[in-house]
Order: sequence, then structure tokens, then C-alpha cells
Amino acid sequence: MVNGPANERLYLGVDGGGSKCRARVSNSEGQILGVGLAGAANPLHGVEHSQSSIVAAAERALERANLPREHVNRLVAGIGLAGVNLPSLCTIMHEWRHPFADMHLTTDLHIACLGAHAQDNGAVIITGTGSCGYVCVDGRSTVLGAHGFPFGDKGSGAWMGLKAVEAVLLASDQLGPDTTLTERVGDHLQAQGLMIVERLSGAKPREFAQLAPLVFAAAEASDQVALAIVQEGASYISGVAHKLLEYDPPRLSMLGGLADRLTPWLDTQIAERLSPPLGPPEAGAIFYAKAQSAREQ
Amino acid sequence: MVNGPANERLYLGVDGGGSKCRARVSNSEGQILGVGLAGAANPLHGVEHSQSSIVAAAERALERANLPREHVNRLVAGIGLAGVNLPSLCTIMHEWRHPFADMHLTTDLHIACLGAHAQDNGAVIITGTGSCGYVCVDGRSTVLGAHGFPFGDKGSGAWMGLKAVEAVLLASDQLGPDTTLTERVGDHLQAQGLMIVERLSGAKPREFAQLAPLVFAAAEASDQVALAIVQEGASYISGVAHKLLEYDPPRLSMLGGLADRLTPWLDTQIAERLSPPLGPPEAGAIFYAKAQSAREQ
Repeated sequence: MVNGPANERLYLGVDGGGSKCRARVSNSEGQILGVGLAGAANPLHGVEHSQSSIVAAAERALERANLPREHVNRLVAGIGLAGVNLPSLCTIMHEWRHPFADMHLTTDLHIACLGAHAQDNGAVIITGTGSCGYVCVDGRSTVLGAHGFPFGDKGSGAWMGLKAVEAVLLASDQLGPDTTLTERVGDHLQAQGLMIVERLSGAKPREFAQLAPLVFAAAEASDQVALAIVQEGASYISGVAHKLLEYDPPRLSMLGGLADRLTPWLDTQIAERLSPPLGPPEAGAIFYAKAQSAREQ
Repeated sequence: MVNGPANERLYLGVDGGGSKCRARVSNSEGQILGVGLAGAANPLHGVEHSQSSIVAAAERALERANLPREHVNRLVAGIGLAGVNLPSLCTIMHEWRHPFADMHLTTDLHIACLGAHAQDNGAVIITGTGSCGYVCVDGRSTVLGAHGFPFGDKGSGAWMGLKAVEAVLLASDQLGPDTTLTERVGDHLQAQGLMIVERLSGAKPREFAQLAPLVFAAAEASDQVALAIVQEGASYISGVAHKLLEYDPPRLSMLGGLADRLTPWLDTQIAERLSPPLGPPEAGAIFYAKAQSAREQ
């Protein structure tokens, strides 16, 4: 029986994100018993909601493993979350009366790195809605970026969308070049000029990030404004990569929704150094839970 | 008696803004009878709250004029508000069952221009928390900018603060030059590096704008990063001014909290074309109310 005896230690790996929470349950041999998906789990946008998403994703993974949800108390959980590098959120999450046998909390970046390299040492660049770099070598880690929208996350999808909207609005005032971006952004938002402002008033980073594919498409078609945006973003990401490589990690991977699209724009020597990720962040979360729980014994 | 007979037509001028609402009541000879101040009246941030601020400011102005608040129904109101250039808000504001004898609604930019020039024709640039340009010649008006934070308002206080925070965070990752801005911004926010992110998570434009004076101070002390920010902002504002002057307005004024600080950084030919504003926006609102009400008779 794959599930093993009812007293066997099981591991839960959770990757909490701004739109989804992914969980997997494995046994001590590393066999995946079940996976689960639930709603957003970014404590920056709501601690209680994140906690219920984590539990919901865990219960779904147990269900897929043909285990009753009460077995949640058998799980040694490794949980990676955005924002827990901020002291206030870290404290709040540690005060959580969670239902697991044990909980090991770390950042979303840390589990992404552990998952990508299946070892403690390595570096990752994540480019999706946001952007950041992370390197861990000999137990010492460094984070670059991860500053969030609108002042950080350069080279990310949200940043590219924001830059595109800036350019389109400048063009609408004839205070900047009018290029194919105007029509592309207008078509996507179903709005022109001032109506773009109304459509995007108070918009979330992911709404800006939805414009990133059209910035890439325009850049690939040699649109000058889009080219400048993509090149500035890629140059920042290459800078992050160079900085990460100074720590001499054995591997460097690029993750996130924009990774494939951005890679051709990076410095050649960076693009050549990239290795494909070996596993997803939730695998890294299990790796982390096992390592922490072994250390405690 | 200054207030005149109880059936005399009185005028109300209202300048609704993101932090305050200013009102003045005048008689038909243009004599100011009383002024009033109330809370925020930016319908973009809440229509009902804006409407109560407008009425509160009007009632206070009546009180200062030694008139009972019921006389609010004698007032022919000219009201200038941000956001009423957006069709949805314009419709909502026109559906308001206001207490005034009559209401003439226009944009905050329009009343600022009428107030600054005491005539229909002229141009203004407003640089405070946000930025924009406005010109009206022979009944035809054009708006430049006024797109809002974070994708517009280049050269504004909020934009300068945002650029400063971006630069400080890049420097904290050693991915940008570390200059005196780091210490200045750190001192102001009482935070360093990642703590800046925590302090400014979800910050409003006016919180970013509070950093603008230190960007100017650093630029005046030849800080290279601050210089680049101020020069980029001033170059945009000069571009707006050149565009406004193409419409050949008789006068051009610069208004708003950043106007004095920014003027020395503008193109010389623009700085030399600036005329001091003759009156405040609420005077322009009365000008508008009178003109509209004369037109209707």
C-alpha cells in the first residue's frame, strides 16, 4: 500500500502564490501520493485567506491520495510563501494554530530554488507578474529585487505592462512616439486614450502583466518603444543574473510565466548558463520540510 | 448690507481636491462674502464623500458670510472636480440631487485655468501630487497628462517619489548607483532596504509625493540620481508647456505645490513665459458659474 501505515510520517509541500496555492503530499520515500490546488495564498493580500487556501490545498491532496482529511495532522508541512521575508508577516504566520503535525515556513523563492535544483545550492530568477533573483550557497542566501509593484519588479510582466501603458498615454498626448503599441494595447483593453486611464484605475499588477505578451510581440516585430521596454527589462534581469553568479551557484534556472519569452533577450553568456528547473516549487517545499525535520531529530 | 436682499442671486465656487475642498460665496458684484474648507472631494475616490464635502464647504462659507445654511438653495454653484472628464463619473455627478439653486460642473483643470487668468483663454500646468497641462482658447480646450498614478503624472511629486524609491531599492541590491538619496529617503521613511518595501506597500500617491522635496534637495546638491529624476521630470513638463503654447494662449501659469521648486529646472524659454496666477481655482469656479448662468438666460 503506497500510503503506508497510518502512523508513517507524510510530507506536505505547499507553494502559495498570488493567484493559486499548490500542494503535494509524499511519503518518506519521496513518492508523490496526491496533489491539490486551491485559491490565492499570498499573506500580503490577506493572512486568513492564505491560511484557508493552504489547508484547502492540503485536504485536496489528501483526498487525491485516498486519505481522510483528518490525516492532515500526520503531515509535516513545508510551506513557501511570498512576503514572509517581511518580519511582521513572518511573525503572524508563525503564530498560526495550523492543523499539521509540524510546519516549516520559508519564502516562495527558497522553495522555488530547492525545487529547481533538488539540492540546497543554486540560484533562480523568477519572472512572471513580478520579478526577483535568489541564490543560496552553503546555507547563505541572498534575494535581489522582489520589491513589488509599482516601485520594483523591473523586467516583470507587470512592469512591462506599466511601461507600455505609460508609453501609450504619452503618445496619446503627442509627447512620445506613437507606435504599434497604441493599437495593440488599445485592442487588448478595448479602450483608447483617456478610457485606458479609466480601465486601469486601481488595476492590480496582474492586469498590467496581461499586457506583457503584446509588448514582446511588438518588440519581436521591431516596434521601437516595445524594443526599448523589453531591452531595459532584459538588461535588468541580466544584471540580476550576473550578481547571482558572483555567489558561484552550481546551477541557475529561470522560472515563471515570462521565463521562456525573456530568455532570448538576455546577455548571451547568461542565456547559456541557464539550466532547466528539475522540479516545481512544491517539490522544493517537501525537500525543505524533510531537511528541517531531519535537523530537528 | 453686503449680503444683499435675500432673493439676490449668490454664487458658490468650489474647488474639490484629493485632500481638501475649498469653497467661496460671492455676490453678483464679485464681492467675496465668505470662504469655507472641508474634506476631500475627489469623486474618483468616493462620490458620496465628495458630495458631502462640497455641501459642507458651502455651508461653512455661508456661515462665514453670516447667512443661514438654508440659503444654500440661493447659490448658483460652479464646481470643479478631478475625474469628471471620465464619462462615468460625469454622469454620476450630474445625477446628484444637489441642494443648490443650480449647479455647473466642470473639471478642476478648467476652474484652475479660469482662476489663474480671470478670463476664458489661457493655459496652466499643475504640478503637485499629480501633473497635467490644460489650455483653453476660443472655447476649445485640451488636456495633457492628468493620467494618474502610477502610469502617468510624470514630473509630479508622486512620480518623483516613486522614481526615488525605485533608485534606492536598485542601489540596495547593488544594481544601481548608491547616492545620498539612499540616506535621505531612509531618514524620511525611517526604513532601509526591504523595510522601505514594507513601509510603502500599497502607499497612496501623496505618500510618494512627500519624498519630492528631498529629491529636489539632493538634485540641488548635485546628487546624480536625483539630478536625473528632476531633469527627466522637468523635461516632460517643459514638453507639456511647449505643446500648450502651440495653441497660442495669452497667458501660461504654473500652479500646484511643486510649481516654485520645478520652475528653475524648466527650459529657459518656458520659465520666461510663465505668468503668476491671478486667482485661485475657486475664483475660477465662480467665474464659470456666472458665465454658464448668463448663457442660460
